[in-house]
Amino acid sequence: MDSNQIASEYHDLNGNHIDVLDEPPTALEFSRLAHISRPALIRGMQIPSVRSWDNESLAAAMGNAKISVAVTPNGRADAVTRAPDGKLYFVEPHVEQMSISDLFSKLSGGMTLERNICNSFIHDWPMIENDDSDVYYLQSQNGNVYSSRFFEGTRDPSEFEALRADIPSEIPWCSEAFGRPPDAVNLWIGSHNSVTSIHSDPYENIYTVVRGSKQFTLLPPTEGSYLRERMYPHGTWTRQGTEAGLTLTPSTNAPPIRWSSVIDPDIPGNLPPDAHPICITLEPGETLYLPPGWWHHVRQTNNTIALNWWYDMEMRGMAWVLLSFLRGVGTVPSGNDEDA
Amino acid sequence: MDSNQIASEYHDLNGNHIDVLDEPPTALEFSRLAHISRPALIRGMQIPSVRSWDNESLAAAMGNAKISVAVTPNGRADAVTRAPDGKLYFVEPHVEQMSISDLFSKLSGGMTLERNICNSFIHDWPMIENDDSDVYYLQSQNGNVYSSRFFEGTRDPSEFEALRADIPSEIPWCSEAFGRPPDAVNLWIGSHNSVTSIHSDPYENIYTVVRGSKQFTLLPPTEGSYLRERMYPHGTWTRQGTEAGLTLTPSTNAPPIRWSSVIDPDIPGNLPPDAHPICITLEPGETLYLPPGWWHHVRQTNNTIALNWWYDMEMRGMAWVLLSFLRGVGTVPSGNDEDA
Repeated sequence: MDSNQIASEYHDLNGNHIDVLDEPPTALEFSRLAHISRPALIRGMQIPSVRSWDNESLAAAMGNAKISVAVTPNGRADAVTRAPDGKLYFVEPHVEQMSISDLFSKLSGGMTLERNICNSFIHDWPMIENDDSDVYYLQSQNGNVYSSRFFEGTRDPSEFEALRADIPSEIPWCSEAFGRPPDAVNLWIGSHNSVTSIHSDPYENIYTVVRGSKQFTLLPPTEGSYLRERMYPHGTWTRQGTEAGLTLTPSTNAPPIRWSSVIDPDIPGNLPPDAHPICITLEPGETLYLPPGWWHHVRQTNNTIALNWWYDMEMRGMAWVLLSFLRGVGTVPSGNDEDA
Repeated sequence: MDSNQIASEYHDLNGNHIDVLDEPPTALEFSRLAHISRPALIRGMQIPSVRSWDNESLAAAMGNAKISVAVTPNGRADAVTRAPDGKLYFVEPHVEQMSISDLFSKLSGGMTLERNICNSFIHDWPMIENDDSDVYYLQSQNGNVYSSRFFEGTRDPSEFEALRADIPSEIPWCSEAFGRPPDAVNLWIGSHNSVTSIHSDPYENIYTVVRGSKQFTLLPPTEGSYLRERMYPHGTWTRQGTEAGLTLTPSTNAPPIRWSSVIDPDIPGNLPPDAHPICITLEPGETLYLPPGWWHHVRQTNNTIALNWWYDMEMRGMAWVLLSFLRGVGTVPSGNDEDA
């Protein structure tokens, strides 16, 4: 049985079904869902304090506190991009400190970029021409609201200290099901110009939309081979002066990054016909349970606010071994060699 | 990553650890255990009605009701055996109807057989010479106390109707964790002359010892390749007349059976050095949680009584696909060809 047969048998058994819950599960119900390890859409998760957020109330609460915002010229932080030297790089965003009011101005001021749609594999991705419409996305992903230090009881400073009173540090039914607190809690604020390239995380993920909507394109862990992971040299978007444009700067000592060479998997033809993507749109108040190892590509509407809670995955048993096996441990070719 | 690497990585992560619980888990705790899918030893499961059983009380309750008992000349029901024609067969037991008092007489009267120890692979297994010391084992495994019909609310006659008042039809924390009742509940009564050859079941299994003790030798689903499964023609032990000895009768129309060619995996040298068997002895009042796909070989002391509850395994998600993959779907060679 090779990986394609596993993918096919998994799909035969599970189809594209995902559970839709009209209210949050009990801890036991969620434990069963986590055992099946398929995504679920959960409605009715009440967090009244964040449901009443708007730009004004957030700006009032945060004041001039500086927050770290990802900036790119193409709306693709942590994604593969072609540099002026013609090579493809996995590029991390430039990070700028600004107030939350500044971020809201940047988000509302940006034009709609056409350049985050690409109807083919990454090799057709155009080089970025600098212009004035950089894309801003609060997506720091390091536990920007609560990190593991918080749950360990040690000092855990947060740029979003002022919002902690509104954001629960954990999801009770989830912590109880897993028998542990989260590892990280993150706040995400962005526009329709930002796209998250397809990847998977070794975490249990509870992702809820506060404002706007998020479109997830999901593939099960069994279908990772359809994403053609390749090795890319590492780079960072940098700015030489406050007024200068962003430059893709190759990293000198960073190891290459393994990443999917498929962008925009939701566009027909970008995935092989055997792939079975699942598309889910989360509206405000809706929550996605995304199990470890599930591949996800994410778009959003303008002025979207979301929160997520990452829990460590269960390392005992087969889950980790299985994800390693499905991802494959063989040599991954360079993403640039194919270019030649 | 091949199957040996998967086995090795699984063992690196999990070792030979099994959880030992001093009291039965809550449904949520058990759901977590089932998610990890490793065996656990559970103490303190109270079933007062069966703890007070003895031969006399059981005989009084059952009276002359006839029960179906497996009979073999070698103590190995459902196992590979060499026939007088020199070929190896997977042989099912002869089944005899008798009262429970008769069964107790047979069990107490039997000599200790030396022939259920075999220090090598199945090919060295001697032919059985008939003698008078047939081995009796109540092991019908078809839900002899409660079958799926019982849980579906339809008529479910049982040879052990008289004992149902003593035997709970389900384990509350287990039914609640899985969200369903058992598929089958079985009573097992046997002697140290009976051995269960190593195999795996696609069921969640809760196995409790009432009297005597059971020794389980376990291998994780990842180590199935060490058991060298082969295809064997099907046979049955038959008796031509009430006084006649048992004869191994090849079946005429039954498909061949896939079975391990390793017997007595607990004897050093019978498993390859890379295998990591786990040995667990269950004493009265102790319960084993045996997850789906775990390979198990079982011995017991004299006059052992045990009960087990089989629950359907979760078919959604990866578990079934994973077990199929680990067992392999390629062509399995004949167990007799290697003999030639």
